Amino acid sequence: QTLRALFQYKPQNIDELMINAGDLIYVNPAQQSDASEGWVIGTSHRTKSEKEPNVKLNGEAHNLSMSRSATNALSLQNAALRRAVLVMRHGERVDQVFGRSWLQQCLTADGKYYRADLNFPSSLPRQKDGMKQFECDPPLSCCGIFQSRLIGEALLDQEVTVSYVYSSPALRCVQTAQHVLQGLKLNPKVRIRVEPGLFEWTKWEASRAIPNFMTTAELLEASYNIDTSYRAHFPLSSLVPTESYEDYVSRSSAVIKQITSACPSKAPLPPFFAFPGVPGVILIVAHSSSLASLTRPLAGLPSRDSRDFAQMVRKIPSLGMCFCEEQKEENKWQMVNPPVKTLTHGANTAFDWRNTILGD
Amino acid sequence: QTLRALFQYKPQNIDELMINAGDLIYVNPAQQSDASEGWVIGTSHRTKSEKEPNVKLNGEAHNLSMSRSATNALSLQNAALRRAVLVMRHGERVDQVFGRSWLQQCLTADGKYYRADLNFPSSLPRQKDGMKQFECDPPLSCCGIFQSRLIGEALLDQEVTVSYVYSSPALRCVQTAQHVLQGLKLNPKVRIRVEPGLFEWTKWEASRAIPNFMTTAELLEASYNIDTSYRAHFPLSSLVPTESYEDYVSRSSAVIKQITSACPSKAPLPPFFAFPGVPGVILIVAHSSSLASLTRPLAGLPSRDSRDFAQMVRKIPSLGMCFCEEQKEENKWQMVNPPVKTLTHGANTAFDWRNTILGD
Repeated sequence: QTLRALFQYKPQNIDELMINAGDLIYVNPAQQSDASEGWVIGTSHRTKSEKEPNVKLNGEAHNLSMSRSATNALSLQNAALRRAVLVMRHGERVDQVFGRSWLQQCLTADGKYYRADLNFPSSLPRQKDGMKQFECDPPLSCCGIFQSRLIGEALLDQEVTVSYVYSSPALRCVQTAQHVLQGLKLNPKVRIRVEPGLFEWTKWEASRAIPNFMTTAELLEASYNIDTSYRAHFPLSSLVPTESYEDYVSRSSAVIKQITSACPSKAPLPPFFAFPGVPGVILIVAHSSSLASLTRPLAGLPSRDSRDFAQMVRKIPSLGMCFCEEQKEENKWQMVNPPVKTLTHGANTAFDWRNTILGD
Repeated sequence: QTLRALFQYKPQNIDELMINAGDLIYVNPAQQSDASEGWVIGTSHRTKSEKEPNVKLNGEAHNLSMSRSATNALSLQNAALRRAVLVMRHGERVDQVFGRSWLQQCLTADGKYYRADLNFPSSLPRQKDGMKQFECDPPLSCCGIFQSRLIGEALLDQEVTVSYVYSSPALRCVQTAQHVLQGLKLNPKVRIRVEPGLFEWTKWEASRAIPNFMTTAELLEASYNIDTSYRAHFPLSSLVPTESYEDYVSRSSAVIKQITSACPSKAPLPPFFAFPGVPGVILIVAHSSSLASLTRPLAGLPSRDSRDFAQMVRKIPSLGMCFCEEQKEENKWQMVNPPVKTLTHGANTAFDWRNTILGD
């Protein structure tokens, strides 16, 4: 049986093997009686030639002659129960760049939308209550779309298997989820589960009223790939404006527990392997506060003090990520490095050629 | 004869007509004896219904019944000689985000390139003198590629016809030109003319030596769409390190004059129309300083004081643009608004989940 590694694994003992994502590992079922509990013995097909220490094997490399491959005794931590949760913040939102009055900047005298700067999206989706609603539920900027797509492509490069996608009902989160799935080439295979319980702390984002989010029908009409069979744990009607910090913390803690228990944890094969039946990553696209409020209860950490919380949340960039892996013991989770790197880029400022170039 | 408008034209007299890019205009050659010099008389097929004041016609709309169309006497400034030059700065370069030591951040212990942050390009092209050369000639970041592509798509939206593309020999400029052409869907139809005379003021960018730019053969091998028949006005060997401001100003002034005289100015058809034979836009992709040093001599303006110059250049963002249009009088150029809007976006900061989320 030949398996393909899903994640990198760094050896922690001399009888363990360095595994890169994409490595092909031969596992002989007859040999497994020698393996200690939770481990398997296998052989890596990866060449060990000094010249190509980082070579990654794919389907074709499988046909390399065995003389170029090295054979290594291999122990793999058997996490047949291992799951992972990737929590990410949405991409750049238009009001982050153009301020609260962004929509006014984009309306013609007769109320039509136009693109006042090339970072505004080329069009807005239809909303039953009119464009005005987008002031409380702003879309991604073009830069936000670029960021989301890039992260999706990077996850694909790392051969991360995403099996479930949950999103806050905020338009920017649904859009981010959609563009990440496009980058992953999983659109429309994996559908987005819109979970109102993932919305931002309402004290920050809904001080007077919960925004009129786009309905499932509207999202579908705008070509968003929504899972219509999904039943939310927290219906929209359960969200209240200006909730207390304690209420937000307990809502977040409840929703992450409900999400993880709704995604199957039993699987028949060893860890690291992208095979049907192996639980893939549960992707959750939500808000900057979600990176702490969803992962800390999962990892068994206490919630942050409400004052520290605001300060911490300000440091989280677009597409900032936290990654939790389930441990050998079921429902024990640990925060580890996300499967892809950070995304760091500069700002691009407004430019007035008349003042700058023509002026004397 | 039905013509399609290439640019918007705002009427300046009551016998002139508002024209949007894409409008179809019927011009009867028999009527032109009534037109004053430099103008033509024509009829707009655009509907004037109050409900759709901004409707833009395309090929299909051509078939609208005449009852929905309005007929207007039309005067068009006849700029049969009119050309336009669009000077743009390259996109975000990797060292702008990651500093001068960017390449060291991306090398494994055995000297292989890897992507230390997702804004680094996924690979570097081959260079005969090795990767080290890219330290003096850095590539675009992924964000820079996004910016370039977006501007190309916006030019296409505005139906701007680009007929000639010139680029500085700096890799970031050639890459920007290529991605703008891809956005314009003109790749590989329009080929890039690499002109060393367009390189940055060497006092800033080449204080000790002129960088080892990629050769034409290397650029072609890396799939850049280079015009191999182009003979540079300023060969690479003519560039000297640490040139004086006066030398830079006179080089820039000479190169823009040579470029405009090398691109045909005579054309048989009226202005605004994207027809074969009508001169399209001459696109020049170069450096922030080029926005002033190329356009000011073209528009007959004196060069800036060298101290003001440095201050002005710092204000120019990625893909900052200046646009010069030739006037009725040949070789008289005026700076006007570029055909597309500015691009303004925010920065994305580095993020350390361990310190931010896990720390207490």
